[in-house]
Amino acid sequence: MARFLKDRTVTKGQAPGSLILVGSKKMEKPVIRIMDYNSGKLDEAEIQNIEEANRYISGDSVTWINIYGIHDQDLINKVGDIFNIKSLYLEDIMNTDQMPKYITEDNYDAFILKMLEYTGEKISAEQITIILGKNYVLTLQEKVGDVFDPVRNRIRSHKSRIRLNNNDYLAYALMDVITDNYLHIIEKIGRNVENLEAKIFSNADNDIATEIYRNKIELSYLRKNIRPAKEAVLNMIRNQDSFFSQDTINYMDDLKEALIHATESIELYSNLVSDQLNTHNSLVSNKMNQVMKVLTIFASVFIPLTFIAGIYGMNFTNMPELKLKYGYLLFWILIILVGGLLMIYFKRKKWL
Amino acid sequence: MARFLKDRTVTKGQAPGSLILVGSKKMEKPVIRIMDYNSGKLDEAEIQNIEEANRYISGDSVTWINIYGIHDQDLINKVGDIFNIKSLYLEDIMNTDQMPKYITEDNYDAFILKMLEYTGEKISAEQITIILGKNYVLTLQEKVGDVFDPVRNRIRSHKSRIRLNNNDYLAYALMDVITDNYLHIIEKIGRNVENLEAKIFSNADNDIATEIYRNKIELSYLRKNIRPAKEAVLNMIRNQDSFFSQDTINYMDDLKEALIHATESIELYSNLVSDQLNTHNSLVSNKMNQVMKVLTIFASVFIPLTFIAGIYGMNFTNMPELKLKYGYLLFWILIILVGGLLMIYFKRKKWL
Amino acid sequence: MARFLKDRTVTKGQAPGSLILVGSKKMEKPVIRIMDYNSGKLDEAEIQNIEEANRYISGDSVTWINIYGIHDQDLINKVGDIFNIKSLYLEDIMNTDQMPKYITEDNYDAFILKMLEYTGEKISAEQITIILGKNYVLTLQEKVGDVFDPVRNRIRSHKSRIRLNNNDYLAYALMDVITDNYLHIIEKIGRNVENLEAKIFSNADNDIATEIYRNKIELSYLRKNIRPAKEAVLNMIRNQDSFFSQDTINYMDDLKEALIHATESIELYSNLVSDQLNTHNSLVSNKMNQVMKVLTIFASVFIPLTFIAGIYGMNFTNMPELKLKYGYLLFWILIILVGGLLMIYFKRKKWL
Amino acid sequence: MARFLKDRTVTKGQAPGSLILVGSKKMEKPVIRIMDYNSGKLDEAEIQNIEEANRYISGDSVTWINIYGIHDQDLINKVGDIFNIKSLYLEDIMNTDQMPKYITEDNYDAFILKMLEYTGEKISAEQITIILGKNYVLTLQEKVGDVFDPVRNRIRSHKSRIRLNNNDYLAYALMDVITDNYLHIIEKIGRNVENLEAKIFSNADNDIATEIYRNKIELSYLRKNIRPAKEAVLNMIRNQDSFFSQDTINYMDDLKEALIHATESIELYSNLVSDQLNTHNSLVSNKMNQVMKVLTIFASVFIPLTFIAGIYGMNFTNMPELKLKYGYLLFWILIILVGGLLMIYFKRKKWL
Amino acid sequence: MARFLKDRTVTKGQAPGSLILVGSKKMEKPVIRIMDYNSGKLDEAEIQNIEEANRYISGDSVTWINIYGIHDQDLINKVGDIFNIKSLYLEDIMNTDQMPKYITEDNYDAFILKMLEYTGEKISAEQITIILGKNYVLTLQEKVGDVFDPVRNRIRSHKSRIRLNNNDYLAYALMDVITDNYLHIIEKIGRNVENLEAKIFSNADNDIATEIYRNKIELSYLRKNIRPAKEAVLNMIRNQDSFFSQDTINYMDDLKEALIHATESIELYSNLVSDQLNTHNSLVSNKMNQVMKVLTIFASVFIPLTFIAGIYGMNFTNMPELKLKYGYLLFWILIILVGGLLMIYFKRKKWL
Repeated sequence: MARFLKDRTVTKGQAPGSLILVGSKKMEKPVIRIMDYNSGKLDEAEIQNIEEANRYISGDSVTWINIYGIHDQDLINKVGDIFNIKSLYLEDIMNTDQMPKYITEDNYDAFILKMLEYTGEKISAEQITIILGKNYVLTLQEKVGDVFDPVRNRIRSHKSRIRLNNNDYLAYALMDVITDNYLHIIEKIGRNVENLEAKIFSNADNDIATEIYRNKIELSYLRKNIRPAKEAVLNMIRNQDSFFSQDTINYMDDLKEALIHATESIELYSNLVSDQLNTHNSLVSNKMNQVMKVLTIFASVFIPLTFIAGIYGMNFTNMPELKLKYGYLLFWILIILVGGLLMIYFKRKKWL
Repeated sequence: MARFLKDRTVTKGQAPGSLILVGSKKMEKPVIRIMDYNSGKLDEAEIQNIEEANRYISGDSVTWINIYGIHDQDLINKVGDIFNIKSLYLEDIMNTDQMPKYITEDNYDAFILKMLEYTGEKISAEQITIILGKNYVLTLQEKVGDVFDPVRNRIRSHKSRIRLNNNDYLAYALMDVITDNYLHIIEKIGRNVENLEAKIFSNADNDIATEIYRNKIELSYLRKNIRPAKEAVLNMIRNQDSFFSQDTINYMDDLKEALIHATESIELYSNLVSDQLNTHNSLVSNKMNQVMKVLTIFASVFIPLTFIAGIYGMNFTNMPELKLKYGYLLFWILIILVGGLLMIYFKRKKWL
Repeated sequence: MARFLKDRTVTKGQAPGSLILVGSKKMEKPVIRIMDYNSGKLDEAEIQNIEEANRYISGDSVTWINIYGIHDQDLINKVGDIFNIKSLYLEDIMNTDQMPKYITEDNYDAFILKMLEYTGEKISAEQITIILGKNYVLTLQEKVGDVFDPVRNRIRSHKSRIRLNNNDYLAYALMDVITDNYLHIIEKIGRNVENLEAKIFSNADNDIATEIYRNKIELSYLRKNIRPAKEAVLNMIRNQDSFFSQDTINYMDDLKEALIHATESIELYSNLVSDQLNTHNSLVSNKMNQVMKVLTIFASVFIPLTFIAGIYGMNFTNMPELKLKYGYLLFWILIILVGGLLMIYFKRKKWL
Repeated sequence: MARFLKDRTVTKGQAPGSLILVGSKKMEKPVIRIMDYNSGKLDEAEIQNIEEANRYISGDSVTWINIYGIHDQDLINKVGDIFNIKSLYLEDIMNTDQMPKYITEDNYDAFILKMLEYTGEKISAEQITIILGKNYVLTLQEKVGDVFDPVRNRIRSHKSRIRLNNNDYLAYALMDVITDNYLHIIEKIGRNVENLEAKIFSNADNDIATEIYRNKIELSYLRKNIRPAKEAVLNMIRNQDSFFSQDTINYMDDLKEALIHATESIELYSNLVSDQLNTHNSLVSNKMNQVMKVLTIFASVFIPLTFIAGIYGMNFTNMPELKLKYGYLLFWILIILVGGLLMIYFKRKKWL
Repeated sequence: MARFLKDRTVTKGQAPGSLILVGSKKMEKPVIRIMDYNSGKLDEAEIQNIEEANRYISGDSVTWINIYGIHDQDLINKVGDIFNIKSLYLEDIMNTDQMPKYITEDNYDAFILKMLEYTGEKISAEQITIILGKNYVLTLQEKVGDVFDPVRNRIRSHKSRIRLNNNDYLAYALMDVITDNYLHIIEKIGRNVENLEAKIFSNADNDIATEIYRNKIELSYLRKNIRPAKEAVLNMIRNQDSFFSQDTINYMDDLKEALIHATESIELYSNLVSDQLNTHNSLVSNKMNQVMKVLTIFASVFIPLTFIAGIYGMNFTNMPELKLKYGYLLFWILIILVGGLLMIYFKRKKWL
């Protein structure tokens, strides 16, 4: 299956706006968790039906509804009803091949982002939707995971900045976790790239080209997921009517810079990787030249000498040299002479 | 025949605005199909003369006239008369080497787009014109095909969104089919590209460079057809006076994003393909280096040894070594010594 | 002589604005042809002195003055006086190394364009100046040619669109001929480029790199001449006070699109040509690898065997193996063993 | 550790805005130095507590507070309190992986810049923050260094322009030192790059590819640090409400130009380095071709000759040639003939 | 010394605005020449002290003061006083590593440009400053030269356009000489580049890569000096308050176009040079492939044959073949058979 663009045969011939999961189903039954807090109180709960969320949202406190699992069409439909989300955008939530983007509507702001995970081999992406409404934050993830645990822990500490701020600060904190992770992954890949240098110069390994290629691919994958995220944040900052307060937008500026830093680092490492391949090729070429020189010297010196030895191994009845008293000595003199001249020739050509 | 720019000798020396088919004639007699519907009723018909379309258009319902075959100059002329289309644009309809574009006039909006088909080997393009007038949609295709069948089926289902909306939604639905198909084709080519990776690393196949080139060519062909389509949609969205209602323009936004996604994926895969060629070249070079080393070691070790053997095969009458009791043994000691030293030399050079 | 930038030693040290021909003189005596027409009448004449043109221009009809030969300083000076053209622009007319451009003045609009000709080997350019005044069109060409004959023929047909329109339509028709020709030449080069593919894959020909380079050069030459022409047309369309009527500007839009199509096709083919060179290099490299493997297998198998044979050709008096009854048989067993092991080794390395 | 993007594990899971040093701690205890001056007087002091700075700032004179060491969280916090700096920006000061940038607030302007140092091997960066407030300049450096000593000396000379101007001129002078240093480093690397040319053409050294790569890397590192600095200065100049007077902004224009010059020189040298690698590869390839030709000529001439000699070394009982009187002579004639013909063949191929 | 960025150690640690020569001192004592003219009169003089210029400037006529030699700090200081030039710009005049630029002040306009000289080997640059004040033109050159002699000669001819116009036309004429020279140099390099083609295809020369590189370097050097000159002229044309009259600005438009033509030609030739290197590499690679094939055929055919001959040169006492009557004949049959089969094999592989 193509990794950079997902298989869409499921949606082929479907009316636009149909709710169909594009991507693979990563868990069985969706799980819904609620955190409801303000500076004074904190409620944590796991609910079975999304309708129960209504009770929390109606209050004054900040409600964070986290849904794990986006493959259940009914659930997504109900989410659309409760939070008043257009079916067009519901479709986007279920299409895990969606590019990161920012959506702004009268009753909510939404970000579709990618949580990236790097196993050391390959980067994989999980689509995360963050919807910021009047006094709630709704997040949708493809599967149960511990991505947002640091935020959860911060909420639990009742003197944390999240508890003292509104729901838009929570949305920012969640995005900050995702963005921070981007820089961590780039840093890891960057370390791989930089470590490859030593290998390239020692040229000990035949798989260098393969490793270089892998790094390039992963950097492409990062770029594909992070560049539109930067655009999304920029769009939000430019939007006058967003659900984000000016205070939080100041923090968002920081996020924007992190994303700019991320994209520039990706560009930088991509160029570095290209340079590495060129350098590696140049070194291989250089080495081949060395090998060729050794071969040429050996062959060019010994082939004529062997020919001469071959001549005096012939069985012609009449070969005057063979009968000379110092024939064998003269042969050696000839050999040394020819060999010596060839050596001088190669020295002149600077091959020795 | 050049595939990326079609042969224009037919139009050479012609006055601009002459109606001449650029491209190849793909069917014999044009076919005209009509679907006339609103939420309540649905009429389907095949008409012989385009003039009969007048009867349907005059009504309140949405009329979709689909013409297969654009090589008939008379027919196109009549279409121009009935729908009041400038001869300049009629010429564009018949020029299948036209780039995708958006045309806006007082009495209609038009899109010229390319329907792409991928046989697994090559992508071919069919030019499709979609004209959106007051209460009709006129489509022109190069040949009879089943491209729009999913839309037809949706119209036939009387509770579909198309039936509940105006003709601009129909135009959108048709464009959505075309755009969706772009992503399917890119996904297929992308899969080819990604599958090639394994081949490159096993290096089992000599035709890798050829396959890489083919992928590159098809991606160029995709870019040529899809990039201007994106521009066309953007132009339409920017146009204040288009025949598209605000509601449909919201859907068009989705189309725009799909096209952006498509062009970015093409770019991504193009870069990936270039990287693959570089990596493949690097691996071939590496392999050649390995081959060279093996050759050099074999030749460099055995050529001097053969020379020594050659010496003692000479027939000089006076060769003292030959008569030594342990001459043969000493010869073997010499051989092992020389061979061993060469081996150490190559080990030092890290060729072993 | 540099083909992409012409020799300017003639103008070195000259005051700016001096009328000097940059480029080579392509004909002896300038020729001046007049076509004077309106929907009712048509006059054709060849005049000796440019002053005679005055008689035609003063009338109401459209006057087309076509001058072949721009090397005659006196003639160009008189043209400047009669049509009231700044000496700065007269200099541009005579400088055939001028880039295509659009000039707008109070009393005329002017285009400097390049008519391209492709002999199958090389593209050559002729500079053509089209000046559109109140009721005349003045064209200046480097030499007598049949470029504009199709337009002349259309004028002769009294029901042609040219006859029914003003002089700005004539100017457009002339530019259309030039632009159309661009697409024809690109299509021809494009066909060359696409045909090269087969050669590259069969790799039968050693001159592939040369042919690829030639295609690249010609595409550069095309780009150099066509890109500024596009800019010139865009400038004209943006100009509010041009001598072109709104109707003709609509046609110019078509021209603009043709030029955009042309420049994009050039870009596309340039990339294709680069890809071809890379692919060709990769295939050559691959082939070299094949050649190397064959050489290595042959040399590596037979060199040790020859060494063994060499040993038993030695003349040591005391070589026990030689006297063994089955010595020769044992030798063959050894040979087959060594050869077999080497074969297995190469099979392991996947060289066989 | 990745050099282009620093390890951020320290901040993982931390709330945004936490004051944590990203990068390595470069000194033990922070040092705070004060210079307090106007045209008439100059005070120099080293203080233990940043609070003591308050005494100087309250006066009319220009106060320059220079802090060496940014790893002490408490100190940075106090700095934030005294100078009224947002915690978000305090975090930036401690994050040595910050990109250069310009911050503008109601009560101060700030620049985060990188002081670069080139050991001849590698460029290293030190983060320097320059904060310009009402009548003070606050600078923060990672470690004690002599970067700003020339500025200090100029302050000590009581008729220097710095003493006669306000604190914004001091800020400019500090930035000028940093920018000037950029050009010095680029010039040094440029010299390395240009000196490499001779090596490439003599091709004496095998490490050319490695050296070229090192130059490329250092240029990337320079670009990463200098390009955002240019942006920062441009942002400041565009800012209407900065703490910089119009006079100093005129000087800043000069700085801007120096930074543009720097970035363009980096671009230029990067291209030059790429061209060097390509040229080097081409020369290696050329040389390999030479080596191959020598090998081929030697092998192709002597291998057939050795074969002939081998034939007459065979021990068949019945070999008529061996018994011919002039057999040996005929053999030599054959050898010279075959060798000569091969020589002619190679001459034809222009290998000799 | 780095050629693309000059050594700045002289300015290290200096206060900005100090007058120090960056670059090498190209002459001993500065020389000052005056031309003072209007349509009626012409005064030429060489003065010793720049103060004497005051006498000329005060008059109504156009005064051109040409200073050769910019290393004399005192002179430059006096120039600053007399013509009221900011010390910042005086510094620029003495910094020969300055990029070309346009400066506009209340009392003068200034251009810093580079006069280029091409010896056939290398391009060298001389910095020329042209300052246009109320009724004077002040030019500063690094050394005495004949660059402006054509302008001087035109001034001497009393009916020349320069004499009839104001001082801004003189400034234009001087810039025109410089710009014209750019095109001459590009044309010369272009000719070198285009002539290299033949060499590449004949592949007679080993220094092709070196020559290609030299061309590339010189083109980079041209770009570095000409591109900012274009920007400078564009800035001037955009400037509403410049000392240039509208008439002269029309001429400047021509200059602008020449500079655009120059930069585009440089770009074109740079691409051409890159294509040449790629083509050259491809041809070398192709040739190596040819060489390899010849070697492989020779070695692969004769090595097995030599092995066979070696076998029958062995001295085993019991080798039945040796005693066969037709042994030698059979040997030859075997040889021809093996050789023939190998030939067929290589024919199959299309190596013959």
